[in-house]
Amino acid sequence: MPRDATETKRRVLEAAYREFAAYGLAGARVDRIAANAEANKRAIYDYFGSKEELFDTVVVERLLTGMETVPETWDDLARFAGAVFDYYASDPDRARLTLWRQLERPEPTARELESFGAKLAEMRAARPTDEAIDTADLYALIWTLHHTAILYPGALRPTAESDQARLRAAVVAAVGRLSAPWRGEAD
Amino acid sequence: MPRDATETKRRVLEAAYREFAAYGLAGARVDRIAANAEANKRAIYDYFGSKEELFDTVVVERLLTGMETVPETWDDLARFAGAVFDYYASDPDRARLTLWRQLERPEPTARELESFGAKLAEMRAARPTDEAIDTADLYALIWTLHHTAILYPGALRPTAESDQARLRAAVVAAVGRLSAPWRGEAD
Repeated sequence: MPRDATETKRRVLEAAYREFAAYGLAGARVDRIAANAEANKRAIYDYFGSKEELFDTVVVERLLTGMETVPETWDDLARFAGAVFDYYASDPDRARLTLWRQLERPEPTARELESFGAKLAEMRAARPTDEAIDTADLYALIWTLHHTAILYPGALRPTAESDQARLRAAVVAAVGRLSAPWRGEAD
Repeated sequence: MPRDATETKRRVLEAAYREFAAYGLAGARVDRIAANAEANKRAIYDYFGSKEELFDTVVVERLLTGMETVPETWDDLARFAGAVFDYYASDPDRARLTLWRQLERPEPTARELESFGAKLAEMRAARPTDEAIDTADLYALIWTLHHTAILYPGALRPTAESDQARLRAAVVAAVGRLSAPWRGEAD
C-alpha cells in the first residue's frame, strides 16, 4: 500500500499542476484532478488536505524545487537568466502557475521563506553593494524578467518560431545590463 | 434615455473593471457586476455583448486608454518607467487585470494592434538600432518591468511602506540601465 500511495500522490501532483496552470486556484476542480489522476477524490483530501493546501504543495513542488534545479550563477546573472528562459520555455505552465499564484494566493509558504532567505544571503555575500538597486529588489527585477515571454503584449508578440531565440537573447542582454555595474565592480 | 444610458454604461464599466480585477474572466459574475452597478443584467448584455466582449471593452478602456495618459518619453525611458510605476501604484487593480488577461484572453484587440503599432513606429523613429535588443523586445522588457511590484515574490517582499519608494527607484534604475546603450548612442 505505501508503494501505491507514492504512485497515486505522484499522479495527483501532476494532474493538479496541469489543472491549476490551466484554470487557477478558484477555477480548478478537484473532481477533474481526481479523474485525470485516476485517483479517488477522498484520497486527495486525505493526502493533501484542502484544495488550497494542494495548491501550496504544487507551488513548492513545481515552482520552488523546480527553480532550484537552475542554480543562480551569482557572478553571471545573464547566464542564469538564459537558463531560466530555457527552463520556462520547456514548460510554459510554470509561468502560468506563477501568475495565478500572485493573483490568488500570494502569501509565501514556509519553504519559500527559507529558500529565498538563503538565496539573498548568498547573493549579498557574493556581490558588493549596488548603490542604486537593493539586493532583494535586483533579485525581484530579474525574477520579473523571467516572465517576459508570458507578459509579452499580444499586440507586439513575435510570431515566428525564430523570434523565441531573439527574445531569449534580449532577456539575457537585459539582465546583463541590469547587473553590469555590479559585475564591473566585482571584476 | 441616452443620458441615462451613458451613465449606466459608466457604472457598468467601473463595476466590471473591479469584478474582473478581483476574480478574472472565468470567475467574474455578470450578476455581481449588475448588482454593483445598480444596472439590469439584460441591459449589460444589450450594451456590451457577451461577458468576453465586456472584458475586452474593459481591457481597452482601463488598460490601453489608461496607459495612453502616461506617454512614453522615448529619450528617457527610465522617467517613463517611474511614471508608470506611480500610475500602477495608484490603482493596483490595473496590474491584476493585466495578469488575468494574459492568462485567460491574451489575444490582442484591434484597438491594441493599432496603438502598439503606432508606439513601435514612434520608438523606431526616435532611437538608433540597439544591436542586442530589438525594439519590440525592448518595449516588452520595459512593459514586463512595469509589473515588478505585482510579481515580487512574497518571500522577498518588502514590508514597510517606505520600501515602495525604494522599489520605484530600483525599477527606474533598471530601465535606465536597460535602455542606456541607446541613450549613449543618441546623445
